[in-house]
Amino acid sequence: MKSGSPEVLEWRRDPITGVWVIIAPQRSQRPYEFEVELEQGQNYPCVFCEGMESCTPEEAFCLRNEDGKWQVRVFPNKFPALGRREKLFWEKEGLFYERMGGFGVHEVIVETPEHYLSFVDFPVEQLERVVYTYRERMKFWGQEERLRYCLIFKNQGMQAGASMFHPHSQLIATPVIPKRVEEELALARDFYSRERRCVFCALLEEELKMEKRLIFKNEYFVALVPYAARFSYEVWILPLEHCAYFTELEQLSSFAEILKLVLQALAEALGKPVFNFVLHVAPYRRESTDEDCRWVYHWHLEIIPFPVRMAGFEWGTGFYINPVIPENAASVLRKLIDIRVGESCGRH
Amino acid sequence: MKSGSPEVLEWRRDPITGVWVIIAPQRSQRPYEFEVELEQGQNYPCVFCEGMESCTPEEAFCLRNEDGKWQVRVFPNKFPALGRREKLFWEKEGLFYERMGGFGVHEVIVETPEHYLSFVDFPVEQLERVVYTYRERMKFWGQEERLRYCLIFKNQGMQAGASMFHPHSQLIATPVIPKRVEEELALARDFYSRERRCVFCALLEEELKMEKRLIFKNEYFVALVPYAARFSYEVWILPLEHCAYFTELEQLSSFAEILKLVLQALAEALGKPVFNFVLHVAPYRRESTDEDCRWVYHWHLEIIPFPVRMAGFEWGTGFYINPVIPENAASVLRKLIDIRVGESCGRH
Repeated sequence: MKSGSPEVLEWRRDPITGVWVIIAPQRSQRPYEFEVELEQGQNYPCVFCEGMESCTPEEAFCLRNEDGKWQVRVFPNKFPALGRREKLFWEKEGLFYERMGGFGVHEVIVETPEHYLSFVDFPVEQLERVVYTYRERMKFWGQEERLRYCLIFKNQGMQAGASMFHPHSQLIATPVIPKRVEEELALARDFYSRERRCVFCALLEEELKMEKRLIFKNEYFVALVPYAARFSYEVWILPLEHCAYFTELEQLSSFAEILKLVLQALAEALGKPVFNFVLHVAPYRRESTDEDCRWVYHWHLEIIPFPVRMAGFEWGTGFYINPVIPENAASVLRKLIDIRVGESCGRH
Repeated sequence: MKSGSPEVLEWRRDPITGVWVIIAPQRSQRPYEFEVELEQGQNYPCVFCEGMESCTPEEAFCLRNEDGKWQVRVFPNKFPALGRREKLFWEKEGLFYERMGGFGVHEVIVETPEHYLSFVDFPVEQLERVVYTYRERMKFWGQEERLRYCLIFKNQGMQAGASMFHPHSQLIATPVIPKRVEEELALARDFYSRERRCVFCALLEEELKMEKRLIFKNEYFVALVPYAARFSYEVWILPLEHCAYFTELEQLSSFAEILKLVLQALAEALGKPVFNFVLHVAPYRRESTDEDCRWVYHWHLEIIPFPVRMAGFEWGTGFYINPVIPENAASVLRKLIDIRVGESCGRH
């Protein structure tokens, strides 16, 4: 099947801010299910459903149960922001503009064959399959030497930017290290050079001592509201042991457990499960300058619950205004999880 | 009247990203008119209307016509993100968190006494009064030595983050230079040190030569779609002559004219007038390091039209995906303005 060869698919760099932008006109041809929010999910069966496999681009990865039915399924995005067949080049345009070919990877990870099953309601075992898939796809693209970074994220709900109702996440792998990751790395390197330790490990130690922003902790992970949370009820999940690479994650079920508890508590606290989450990991090790990432970086998951409205102040400053005191948000979520965990302990 | 003394109003710095966040719990007590979008504007008269002046905090600035009726009115935001009575301090919290007192200024600029008059439909003379007010308030706060930056922005429409229907803009002045401005300045300084000229002036020269991203030009200003536009139909308006400070603007009517033409064209192209705009200016000159801003920076207005959805990719990378080719957006807007200007010439 044709996966839609675009007229233009390129990176452009803004000479004023240094930010790279992907110009991807074919993205505007995406089907958009959510024009009327009330109709959410009514487009059933959709191309992500069981039985509709022939409507997607060719399968890249699949997890099946004993009956041979798929449980998680990965394929290239039909309306990609970046493409593997695009050229990898860099050039000047005019006197001082810069552009690159739109080389990269953009995959869809369909998280369940069940159209109507909400991510928040997945059994822990299914969540475990999803995070296993994240890890395997991230490893897989690590073999492609021209890719420097692999981003996995999920947009849940129309207001969070999803264009399809059927539960899915996305993977975008790029030949450049994202600005946000560069910023994190710069400060983490700076901290490491002064303190000889990972800034995230220091943060965890401090938060475990202070307790007031902790939400939940299991054997391997901690969920907390960051000190300077940008958004109401923003939550981070971090491994307790230092680790820069999600590809090295072994405690899949423990991670699935804490993820489910946090998302359930957010849905309860805020009334509906609409959120973005993003896996922050160290860049692939390609150059000698990437080597220190193993020591200075610490992978984590950032969850940004609805509603997030970027407005004039945020665009103009790069700062944020958060109307919910982080300690209060943590307290609400902690209590909700306590009740749930207490209940589930009682049942056993 | 009480302007709502908050429990907490503080800046917090994220040690991982370096971003400052304003924690402003009293912002969540704002009245929110737009719960149901269809009811937009039905809350009439509102506290911004003529005759309701006693319901707002004390007036800080006002423009009146010959009859003594006000035409533009400025007062402190009743639910401020920053406050003048807050303390200006910086301190460490625990081992490595940093916070500052919530000192700063947050004003509302009511742009017209008329509740139902849309900004896009303002007569040019009224727009001129609005931009005159921007300039005067920016000058005024320049006298407060503790403020380093003054941001003026407008959120038009619920989806753009407005909480009140009645036409208004906002001013926020801060004791720190915004991250976004620091980033622009860093690259502008770098360019200046290599080329001995302003990067915006170079950009203008290039764009005037290339023409394909130009939308409109009058005697003093240019409107264009930037080369690496982050969003569909993003537009910048820049003065043709080098100038770092909006406070030095003299060609008010010329600026009002181009602003009106661009906003009308955007509303026509996109179906409704929902947008954010932000005035980007150089920081106030406080320290010797601010001196070079006069030469390296160039004030401009950035307009980000609806719809902007930040989602996982943008949060995770700091990059953007734009589905509309900037040259195509420019062409659409250019044609719409050509028709309108042609018509208005025909009438004379």
